[in-house]
Amino acid sequence: MTMKKILLVFFVGVAQSMVAQVPQDQKSIKEIFDEALKNGKAYPMLKELCTDIGARLSGSPAAAAAVEWSRHMMERNEFDSVWLQPVMVPHWVRGQKEIARVINLKNRGVLELSVCALGNSIGTGPSGVSARVIEVKNFDELKQLGTKAVQGKIVFYNRPMDPTLIHTFEAYGGAVDQRGRGASEAAKLGAVAVIVRSMGINIEDYPHTGSLHYQDNVPKIPAIAVSTKHAEVLSKLIKEEKELQVYIETHCEMLDDAPSFNVVGQLNGGEYKDEIIDIGGHLDSWDLAQGAHDDGAGCVQAIEVLRLFKELGIKPKRTLRAVMFMNEENGLRGGMKYAEIAKAKKENHIAAIESDEGGFTPRGFSMTGSEETHAKLKSWKPLFAPYGLTEFADEGGGADIGPLGPLGTAMIGYSPDSQRYFDYHHTPEDTIDKVSPRELEMGAAAMAALVFLIDKYGLK
Amino acid sequence: MTMKKILLVFFVGVAQSMVAQVPQDQKSIKEIFDEALKNGKAYPMLKELCTDIGARLSGSPAAAAAVEWSRHMMERNEFDSVWLQPVMVPHWVRGQKEIARVINLKNRGVLELSVCALGNSIGTGPSGVSARVIEVKNFDELKQLGTKAVQGKIVFYNRPMDPTLIHTFEAYGGAVDQRGRGASEAAKLGAVAVIVRSMGINIEDYPHTGSLHYQDNVPKIPAIAVSTKHAEVLSKLIKEEKELQVYIETHCEMLDDAPSFNVVGQLNGGEYKDEIIDIGGHLDSWDLAQGAHDDGAGCVQAIEVLRLFKELGIKPKRTLRAVMFMNEENGLRGGMKYAEIAKAKKENHIAAIESDEGGFTPRGFSMTGSEETHAKLKSWKPLFAPYGLTEFADEGGGADIGPLGPLGTAMIGYSPDSQRYFDYHHTPEDTIDKVSPRELEMGAAAMAALVFLIDKYGLK
Repeated sequence: MTMKKILLVFFVGVAQSMVAQVPQDQKSIKEIFDEALKNGKAYPMLKELCTDIGARLSGSPAAAAAVEWSRHMMERNEFDSVWLQPVMVPHWVRGQKEIARVINLKNRGVLELSVCALGNSIGTGPSGVSARVIEVKNFDELKQLGTKAVQGKIVFYNRPMDPTLIHTFEAYGGAVDQRGRGASEAAKLGAVAVIVRSMGINIEDYPHTGSLHYQDNVPKIPAIAVSTKHAEVLSKLIKEEKELQVYIETHCEMLDDAPSFNVVGQLNGGEYKDEIIDIGGHLDSWDLAQGAHDDGAGCVQAIEVLRLFKELGIKPKRTLRAVMFMNEENGLRGGMKYAEIAKAKKENHIAAIESDEGGFTPRGFSMTGSEETHAKLKSWKPLFAPYGLTEFADEGGGADIGPLGPLGTAMIGYSPDSQRYFDYHHTPEDTIDKVSPRELEMGAAAMAALVFLIDKYGLK
Repeated sequence: MTMKKILLVFFVGVAQSMVAQVPQDQKSIKEIFDEALKNGKAYPMLKELCTDIGARLSGSPAAAAAVEWSRHMMERNEFDSVWLQPVMVPHWVRGQKEIARVINLKNRGVLELSVCALGNSIGTGPSGVSARVIEVKNFDELKQLGTKAVQGKIVFYNRPMDPTLIHTFEAYGGAVDQRGRGASEAAKLGAVAVIVRSMGINIEDYPHTGSLHYQDNVPKIPAIAVSTKHAEVLSKLIKEEKELQVYIETHCEMLDDAPSFNVVGQLNGGEYKDEIIDIGGHLDSWDLAQGAHDDGAGCVQAIEVLRLFKELGIKPKRTLRAVMFMNEENGLRGGMKYAEIAKAKKENHIAAIESDEGGFTPRGFSMTGSEETHAKLKSWKPLFAPYGLTEFADEGGGADIGPLGPLGTAMIGYSPDSQRYFDYHHTPEDTIDKVSPRELEMGAAAMAALVFLIDKYGLK
């Protein structure tokens, strides 16, 4: 055999093993995309959720309405069963609009800053807090300043998200410690409040909320986010006037835990009905907007995946569940409860797919799983290429499905294009008009196609 | 040698030949993207063009303002030379707002339709046109109806864009004959006017304009576009009431050709200065909107490509030109003039890149060129993968650079994500708020990276 022939045999062999069932699967996947793009219901569902219900933070009346809306939607689509999983959730309320103003500008009066309280934070109450502001870029810088410099001050965290990272979630990951841990780290050194630069990449007028976590045995201090635009202004003013003081007034408070629910809809499997595939998004959203991309999109896409199966008459071999998780934003209680029940019932969740990166054009999937499941997933790549999904990352999943990991579930994250996500994330801008119907429906189709393959072939 | 070793040698050989200059090129391309994402000027430029000048149809005062704006912008960026190329352009004006109403609805009064005149069309004048409406899906159907059925009627073209085509420009290509040729085809059979379903995929309230072409020696009849929503309504009404009549009134007219300009900015090449690389967009836009995606985006990206070279201190070996073509929308006079001058001056344009598919996330490039240039372009694919550009299509280019093709120029189209383009194209919705700063800047960076490679290595 000449080398040329050896190579030929080699390539043909590889090609054949990969394309065994390809024509049939290509056809099924095209049917899924065609139905989603012609008659998709993800967008009309999302429009209802955003405009009829809107913001739906855990514990709020709107969150309860969203639970009922989801249940009705699943029942209307005649899923085999629909049920609620009770779960107690944190109940944080923002109270009246926050105030933050620079109060000692030389000869320039008062400057109102565009801010909002961070979720889970305590309020200042009506008397507010006034103090000098010191700016830091990270915790190392804060620690070097030490108690002497920080005591009695407001700490201003102003490290921007890195705009040069192409995948914007990496930039978020590199900055969000300021929001999550900033208050407690500053409180350890005696700070009286913190101002955190919003988790946005562009220079914008509006602040981004999001949750913080207070560490045990550390005093809880008020915490606000400031718009990226005013973060830049504040930083400049601090350089000009060392003694710059800011007045902060917030009225938020953490109430007692409140009863709420995950909402689950199921299509029963056939041959392997004990193997469960979850498709999920989170139903709660921040109180400042409609939660269109975060994460109404993921919720309606999960429902749409099951609807597509029903509409196209695809009878799943395995059991499919659309899961609306409650409380991803400020507690993750729903995700933990779902895994707790799965464990107690000894259920076999072979894979869970989460959509919580917005309703944008699909680019691929990420997965945390075994080598075997990775190999399987990657063998399907050519089936997704015609739809523009080419990015299959080796690590990933999602917050809500994370607690299923220890049960051996392959955790899969749906990865849409990430460029616009942080323009809207946790802001009043996260509204239905920012969602492209086609992009949203294509995302649902992409997930349905993946579920179709996992259901047909398993992941092992 | 074992087969394994043969394969190893083969793969290493392939890999080595492909990655010869890779680390250096990777570094340069990263510098280009970093600068664009940190300090990019495409978005601020586009904001100026859209909000200070706005709609700029050929021959309008705003088009003249856009010419001056472009010249100033290039001069402010200190390009080596900036000049205007005079070109006479069609001067079509819409006149007062169009009217179209269904006038004989049984017991239901009058229904106003959401319409606009098609570019280049003649007006009905103040007396308007009233006639029965007959619906067709294509020219075959029209011809089968024949003169007897069509004579004296208004022909309603109602074939939707195919939503199942993933690349939306294919769907556009499959429907736009109705707009471009529909009036003349109907006039041949004695129709008095045409209504064309808007070139949009979603069901929307607003119409999409765009140009038509009247054939020689065929009567010119008025032509309007109707919103996709009202196309559906009209179709339904025609089925219910066979004698349905519509009144159309348009006040548009084609004036005498007007003087205008292409605007060209140049960075002089070094070693191979006689080889020219063009980067272009079109400066004119429809009169209904700001022309943000179509094609302000392409214009500012072309300027930004040259700015990035200057800012990063990259001295081009070849000559780079940013070209703002005039009159792409309703005549292509600018593109033809540019090629005519290039030919007369015997210039050697080795490649021309056009951005006219919107300022969305970059997905790749298309090219019409020789086998040699295709091989070269594809050898650079791995350099673009980290930035999400994976689609390199074998056919493509753009309308304005098309006339350079016969001169042997490789014609390259910049291909951004196409899902949202036809939500805005030729409608009042094509405004700056629909543009993501990151997506726009990444597009400029992607083109700059390609120009960097063509400039460094040539295309042969």
